[in-house]
Amino acid sequence: MSVTRRLARFIVESAPSDVPERVRHEGTRSFVNWLGCALGGIHHDASKKALAARALTAGPPQATLVARPGATDIYTAAFINAIGAHVFDFDDAQPRSTNINPSCSVAPVPLALGEYLKGSGKDVLHAFILGLDAECRIANAVYLDNNRRWFTNSTAGVFGAVAAAGKLLRLSEQQMTWAFGIAATQASGLRDMFGTMCKSFNVARAAECGMLAAVLAREDFDSSECVIEAPLGFAQTFMPGSDPAPVAARLGDEYEVSYNIYKPFACGIVLHAAIDACIQVRKEYRFELDAIEKVSLQVHPIVIQITNLRDAQTGLQGKFSVYHCAALALIYGAAGERQFSDENARDPAVLALRNRIEASPEPNFKRSQARVLVQLKDGRSYEKKIEAAIGSLDNPLSDEQISDKFRTLAEGILAPDATSHLIELCWRLESLPDFSIIPLATRAAHNAHA
Amino acid sequence: MSVTRRLARFIVESAPSDVPERVRHEGTRSFVNWLGCALGGIHHDASKKALAARALTAGPPQATLVARPGATDIYTAAFINAIGAHVFDFDDAQPRSTNINPSCSVAPVPLALGEYLKGSGKDVLHAFILGLDAECRIANAVYLDNNRRWFTNSTAGVFGAVAAAGKLLRLSEQQMTWAFGIAATQASGLRDMFGTMCKSFNVARAAECGMLAAVLAREDFDSSECVIEAPLGFAQTFMPGSDPAPVAARLGDEYEVSYNIYKPFACGIVLHAAIDACIQVRKEYRFELDAIEKVSLQVHPIVIQITNLRDAQTGLQGKFSVYHCAALALIYGAAGERQFSDENARDPAVLALRNRIEASPEPNFKRSQARVLVQLKDGRSYEKKIEAAIGSLDNPLSDEQISDKFRTLAEGILAPDATSHLIELCWRLESLPDFSIIPLATRAAHNAHA
Repeated sequence: MSVTRRLARFIVESAPSDVPERVRHEGTRSFVNWLGCALGGIHHDASKKALAARALTAGPPQATLVARPGATDIYTAAFINAIGAHVFDFDDAQPRSTNINPSCSVAPVPLALGEYLKGSGKDVLHAFILGLDAECRIANAVYLDNNRRWFTNSTAGVFGAVAAAGKLLRLSEQQMTWAFGIAATQASGLRDMFGTMCKSFNVARAAECGMLAAVLAREDFDSSECVIEAPLGFAQTFMPGSDPAPVAARLGDEYEVSYNIYKPFACGIVLHAAIDACIQVRKEYRFELDAIEKVSLQVHPIVIQITNLRDAQTGLQGKFSVYHCAALALIYGAAGERQFSDENARDPAVLALRNRIEASPEPNFKRSQARVLVQLKDGRSYEKKIEAAIGSLDNPLSDEQISDKFRTLAEGILAPDATSHLIELCWRLESLPDFSIIPLATRAAHNAHA
Repeated sequence: MSVTRRLARFIVESAPSDVPERVRHEGTRSFVNWLGCALGGIHHDASKKALAARALTAGPPQATLVARPGATDIYTAAFINAIGAHVFDFDDAQPRSTNINPSCSVAPVPLALGEYLKGSGKDVLHAFILGLDAECRIANAVYLDNNRRWFTNSTAGVFGAVAAAGKLLRLSEQQMTWAFGIAATQASGLRDMFGTMCKSFNVARAAECGMLAAVLAREDFDSSECVIEAPLGFAQTFMPGSDPAPVAARLGDEYEVSYNIYKPFACGIVLHAAIDACIQVRKEYRFELDAIEKVSLQVHPIVIQITNLRDAQTGLQGKFSVYHCAALALIYGAAGERQFSDENARDPAVLALRNRIEASPEPNFKRSQARVLVQLKDGRSYEKKIEAAIGSLDNPLSDEQISDKFRTLAEGILAPDATSHLIELCWRLESLPDFSIIPLATRAAHNAHA
């Protein structure tokens, strides 16, 4: 049987009880983490502009726009929610091979369809886990490394979106097979978009395109029946010579969500060990910033290769500067979206400190390792080595830390008690008879500014 | 100045009066030809399924669904109209280099936006011509040959759609530059879809994606500012090593629509010379079908290479069989969508005749040349050589022939007087103060079956 059909059959036949409890819990963690990000991004310019553009043509009220009043059609909801959730690059990552951000193109789909179809929390979680699985399997098989030519979050993401949508829409095996074809032929997303609003746009469009594919397939709109492995299909077009067989290997024995990690810092994963080292050394030794003579970082060589930006002018640029990130971490003990403000990128205190920071490559380090040495003017010095950065697979965020991240992202968006209530609902996702209680709990009635 | 920005500036600054009269007339011919195809395809299964799927989420009534009652949002209208118009593969082609079907991804956009924005016929025609120009320039520069890996109609089509939409939405140069970025990062479409409903789907999605890109750019949703030529941009991603410079060369001196041709027969362009030869020999010599002993065709070698199918089982397969096409042409004197029925592919008379047809390659022939020799049982024989097939650049369809094609496609869809009125309106496109009179004239009130 073909790879595409095997994947389709697995998704169609999978039951919630087939998925081990620890996998389901990881799925819940992914959902909580993603929804927090979705709340955090709603005031971003990209979210507002996207909403203004889509409001012209929005359809009937079917699904919630996170933390906004009322509802809109399922596509518009998924699109807008997806943009907000990815715009800070603060969501999640799969460090296995691709560094894909797994939830961004997938989660908006069960959020919208779960509400529209009046699904249970259990069904929504199950569809989400299957979507993440399809997406990451495609990404792992078809990409040798992340984002070399194509933007994996969207080109593989559309497979995750269609799998989640197809499961909730109860497609047949034949329909799910076609749905993969309809999704794959919409796969798109250029690297050239990085640093613009279109990075989030691609993710949002993948969510929407995947959902459309499933809705069309439900009407028996036909397509290729072997799109993943066909000679002119997805794998050979996006990565000539790749072997799509692993996409359908060990289905149900291993779930990709098990490898998902959640970002503690609002920037690329490669910087997290260095940031963690700076936060730890600050916390442990409590020196004055004025007393610092020099800061020396040792990091995995890739950190120098891609984040050796000395003069970041904006918060966004600061996310690509190891010096700026380390300075924020030493000053604030944090590197969330708030710290990556444009004001901080102009703040004389930040600039003075980051000019005293050096970074050198340490070829023996893993990516999750880093060392910092802080030398004070009085001759004292403090050192901290991180063996596994916070948020890495070996040192994952705890449930409580994910809740804390959610709370920080929801500040100023939802009232504190509404946030606490929502977090509590999210952790009970699997046991909710009516999933829509979660999107409804985000609506603007609970908005801190409403 | 970059290629992308030069193209954007050209589109933004172009005025209808900048376009020579003969180019505008070719644009009108393209529009009439396309709208006839859009009427012809509305009862196809793909159109019906697509409409059922999209009806769930359709937005406010902004634009007409061709030959159906009422209106829907601009995206849904463009999507459904595009599917119907391309589903017979009977639209148009640009034989210059790519054999792209230029109108299919572009025309649905000015049709929908022209009505929604209450534009004039002149503005709609102008936007359509600029859209075709952007699309074909991209296709010519980035594709060495048609459809080798990607489906040009959609991957280049999205540029045509965004150019037409951006012009009608009166984007600024900066917004049009971003709009190209937003469109390009949605460019998609796999060869693997050929022979399924997803061929039309890709075309329809390109129309919709291009329109969305322009609507977002109008809100200053930003994107790459050099997406066509950037190292990780469109050209280098879709055709590594290609030179995008010609995209912006001689802008305004030459319009791609000048090279558009309109299909007289509902199958691939390569078969048209052979079909034309059979129709001509039949018309000139009026022999009985029963009297035929043998038919010998001489054709360009590519005809044998790609249409050497002996036992076509369906009408669709018949479009890829030179024998089936020649038999239909000899029997009916036509090769429209009606002749390519599944019934005809099972008809003993068709099968008997096509078994007596031979075809041989003639390396000295151009693609628009063919020769047929009909030998009768009584020893007589008739020959016809076609120097430039009907519909080719050297022997284009006349305006009247385009009207006839329209009338044939509209049979059973619109009442005959409604069809005549609509055709007359279409030829006056440029002089209509209110373009929406055209889409309104297609609505179901005028429907033959309404």
